[in-house]
Amino acid sequence: MTVHDKPSPSWHSEALSLPARYYIDPANHQSELERFFLGMWIHAGRADQIPVSGDYVLRDVAGESLIVTRADDGAIHAFYNVCRHRGTRLCEAAEGSFDGLIRCPYHAWAYDLSGRLVAAPQMHDVPNFRIEDYPLAAVALGLWDGHIFLNLGECPRPLAEQLGVLADKFRAWGMEQLRLGKRIVYDVASNWKLIIQNYSECLHCPGVHPALQRLSHFLSGQNEPAHPSYLGGRMDLREGIGTLSMDGQLTGACLPGLSVDDHRRVYYYTVLPNLLLSLHPDYMMTHTLWPRALDRTEVVCEWHFHPEAMANPGFRLDDAVSFWDMTNRQDWHVCEQMQLGLKSRAYRPGPYSRREDLLHAFDQLIRSEEQSSTP
Amino acid sequence: MTVHDKPSPSWHSEALSLPARYYIDPANHQSELERFFLGMWIHAGRADQIPVSGDYVLRDVAGESLIVTRADDGAIHAFYNVCRHRGTRLCEAAEGSFDGLIRCPYHAWAYDLSGRLVAAPQMHDVPNFRIEDYPLAAVALGLWDGHIFLNLGECPRPLAEQLGVLADKFRAWGMEQLRLGKRIVYDVASNWKLIIQNYSECLHCPGVHPALQRLSHFLSGQNEPAHPSYLGGRMDLREGIGTLSMDGQLTGACLPGLSVDDHRRVYYYTVLPNLLLSLHPDYMMTHTLWPRALDRTEVVCEWHFHPEAMANPGFRLDDAVSFWDMTNRQDWHVCEQMQLGLKSRAYRPGPYSRREDLLHAFDQLIRSEEQSSTP
Amino acid sequence: MTVHDKPSPSWHSEALSLPARYYIDPANHQSELERFFLGMWIHAGRADQIPVSGDYVLRDVAGESLIVTRADDGAIHAFYNVCRHRGTRLCEAAEGSFDGLIRCPYHAWAYDLSGRLVAAPQMHDVPNFRIEDYPLAAVALGLWDGHIFLNLGECPRPLAEQLGVLADKFRAWGMEQLRLGKRIVYDVASNWKLIIQNYSECLHCPGVHPALQRLSHFLSGQNEPAHPSYLGGRMDLREGIGTLSMDGQLTGACLPGLSVDDHRRVYYYTVLPNLLLSLHPDYMMTHTLWPRALDRTEVVCEWHFHPEAMANPGFRLDDAVSFWDMTNRQDWHVCEQMQLGLKSRAYRPGPYSRREDLLHAFDQLIRSEEQSSTP
Repeated sequence: MTVHDKPSPSWHSEALSLPARYYIDPANHQSELERFFLGMWIHAGRADQIPVSGDYVLRDVAGESLIVTRADDGAIHAFYNVCRHRGTRLCEAAEGSFDGLIRCPYHAWAYDLSGRLVAAPQMHDVPNFRIEDYPLAAVALGLWDGHIFLNLGECPRPLAEQLGVLADKFRAWGMEQLRLGKRIVYDVASNWKLIIQNYSECLHCPGVHPALQRLSHFLSGQNEPAHPSYLGGRMDLREGIGTLSMDGQLTGACLPGLSVDDHRRVYYYTVLPNLLLSLHPDYMMTHTLWPRALDRTEVVCEWHFHPEAMANPGFRLDDAVSFWDMTNRQDWHVCEQMQLGLKSRAYRPGPYSRREDLLHAFDQLIRSEEQSSTP
Repeated sequence: MTVHDKPSPSWHSEALSLPARYYIDPANHQSELERFFLGMWIHAGRADQIPVSGDYVLRDVAGESLIVTRADDGAIHAFYNVCRHRGTRLCEAAEGSFDGLIRCPYHAWAYDLSGRLVAAPQMHDVPNFRIEDYPLAAVALGLWDGHIFLNLGECPRPLAEQLGVLADKFRAWGMEQLRLGKRIVYDVASNWKLIIQNYSECLHCPGVHPALQRLSHFLSGQNEPAHPSYLGGRMDLREGIGTLSMDGQLTGACLPGLSVDDHRRVYYYTVLPNLLLSLHPDYMMTHTLWPRALDRTEVVCEWHFHPEAMANPGFRLDDAVSFWDMTNRQDWHVCEQMQLGLKSRAYRPGPYSRREDLLHAFDQLIRSEEQSSTP
Repeated sequence: MTVHDKPSPSWHSEALSLPARYYIDPANHQSELERFFLGMWIHAGRADQIPVSGDYVLRDVAGESLIVTRADDGAIHAFYNVCRHRGTRLCEAAEGSFDGLIRCPYHAWAYDLSGRLVAAPQMHDVPNFRIEDYPLAAVALGLWDGHIFLNLGECPRPLAEQLGVLADKFRAWGMEQLRLGKRIVYDVASNWKLIIQNYSECLHCPGVHPALQRLSHFLSGQNEPAHPSYLGGRMDLREGIGTLSMDGQLTGACLPGLSVDDHRRVYYYTVLPNLLLSLHPDYMMTHTLWPRALDRTEVVCEWHFHPEAMANPGFRLDDAVSFWDMTNRQDWHVCEQMQLGLKSRAYRPGPYSRREDLLHAFDQLIRSEEQSSTP
């Protein structure tokens, strides 16, 4: 997306794509899941999906089923979906509403919405059994302008530390007020990192996304220097284009509070490890990445709008959704072709162009994480 | 099922569910297959399924295909389903009838029903080849009141030793005379031990099986002290209930020879490692468990009746079959939910109630087997 | 197929089928793939499938996707299907035609048909980047009378060395002139070696292929002493039979240039590791074997005819194709049954008859390869 004025003299010797093991070695994948998905704050959807006490969604993080629910006091909690009696999974449906209690389907142990065990049939005569010793196992939860983050690590550092300056950077977009307009879930046959890399450069845009290229030139904009927990930049809309949609016209009004400059820009940020945050003048698009295997990633793409815009009779989201659904599918296709190619014994790390500087920065993060965790 | 008059003082500290590795570790599963399914006598169906000479069924034991067939003299034999020439599987269809010979489909080596090689085309001019050196590999077979048991171990001890007092305990039910009325095969996504544990307590009955709870109270009955190769007990039918069926009425007459007390009881015994034997006043139900993977068990459920009852115009098996088919499915569901939960890093062994005493005894068997086989 | 005049005195003690590990051990399979499929010249189809410059086919060799294409000068090349930029798979469709360039679908790097990189967008300002340093990775390719062979080894010895006397032996059949009449692809659930062994004896023919036995007696013909890279022999057609087809009548004229003796014979040669070459008086049948797993082999069966015969109004290929399609399926079935049997703990290497001499020779090759590569 960006142009460096002064090429670093060492650019060529360093800037090669990652060795194949990062994409095809199951042990490497397992260690990345532990470092990034069990060790960092991960994006897990939006608070407006569970507006009422008892509402819940399930999340599957690296094979762990988690319940995210809103308690009677309005606070949101997350728990492992495991009964403390004999380990039965408590909850099956992907989303729904509890009637005040989370009941195990097997022996009817019951927990309140803050996770405390409140009923355990036939345990009264077990010596030393104390009901308060068996709450649900909790998972750390943090909120950022309506985004839910979870942390499965043992002693999580504050979410704000991970977000850094991002926490304030997008205040003007009023993300907390936005509401879900549309969700599409994709099953992509590629490693999660290929999706982030794909998102981090527009060198492929002229060939892969001719419609996008007509709305926003691939050499426009500016990347921000990469940070250990996020990376991104912005691109400019072409003259006469209001937003990214099939016809380039706005879905409704621009979001209130944006500067005139930001009416002409789209911001693309990867909030590591699993949120792609795309801020348009009139809507927010989020991609939440869920690695399901070394070579499979579930991508939840959501489009979020201002409630006042949605209430307006002229509001139309189809054009924006169709545009990105088309563009998403173009991206998944090349990510999948790259995953296939990386399996080959003929693959060797190849040279990045300057248009792929964020990938080089991302790859360094991946490698440094690896180094720092090696004794 | 039972009530202890005097709680053991050490109950609480000991009686925890098994660690997760017993349900999710492939190496542990393999070692259990070897100890229990390749080392003990395993239930493999009923002799009345192959009534005539030449009739056969195939059984799949821990990946081994076995032929169980009746020879000309009426004796039942079991063989590995492998030709002695080049190893071709001899027989494909799950059941059927041989015309006196078991022929290899490849090069037409042929064996009689007692396993002797009787034809080997073009082997006449091979020096030192002797047809009597190549019988089918036999598997030890034992019978108990019409039940077929197989043993794949090297030097099996007598079946009677494994059955212990059970061999005589159910003489009155005349199991040998009973005949198959109905078979339903289930594919259950859980470890085999969870199915035995589920069968061994009725603490879950009020919540999971309301219909069963209406016919037989979950706190009724009595468990027998567990034995190294079987465990079980009995429960009582409620007043006015004749048997376990949708309407609680008998399928026909009670089995001849039962005591008046046994007209009011259902006996539930696990004959380790793979038979669940449920004796009702008027029928025998058997569940035969076939572990197919760490987390998958094929369960063959059969309902067996007295031939005179079956010949009676008023005989009706549908109500009993429907009752248990419904109950089975309720059980498989909670077993599957438990299998899912046990994968979680949040699972910790949890406390058993006194109503789960047989599970604690079963778990001790599982652990002790492990210890005794460790050098 | 053959008869030895003087039985070797050591026949019985040596001639046993291979131990099970050769068919069921994944590590053994991997090492065979490396030795035979990545180390030898492998058959990869026929040159007449890509007659025009730009035509291509993809081949999957032991998990490697390869592009086989014809360049502007008529020469045929093979390349790994991997872009030198970031490793994306270049080409998806199993066959087709390039418009002069092989373009990466991701960032539009483009290669000419001889593999040279000719376009690499946005790489102009990368220090030290030289377009000539990034050709496609090439695979050695050889031709034999219209057959395409590939070699993925590092320093392949000449194809002629592997073919030995075979290179000239079948000159009279004019294989280069023949053209594809029909292709059928089979997915066989057996190890690749079982298919070669099945092809190398007709002891199974009376039982498995009664129709074949009616056209050609299983004890007719003669085997050639086995060679390290091929093995085979011939069988005779019965009196009054013109070729192998449903009705035993020729598809058209005999191939020009054949001797009168060869009008009465079918030659069956395994060109190791993956071509079964069956030369009939009037057509050539090829089976190309592609191991897809330890216990799965894709078999591409093709029937090739003389173009003049095909142009003749009386030409009919259906009878020959149907005959072999039926016979193929009979063979795959017994191969699959053998694969299943070999998994059993009861399998022991069994005695070969003299009619299985080629199998014994083939097994020795398999074993000796193993020994020679062991330090």
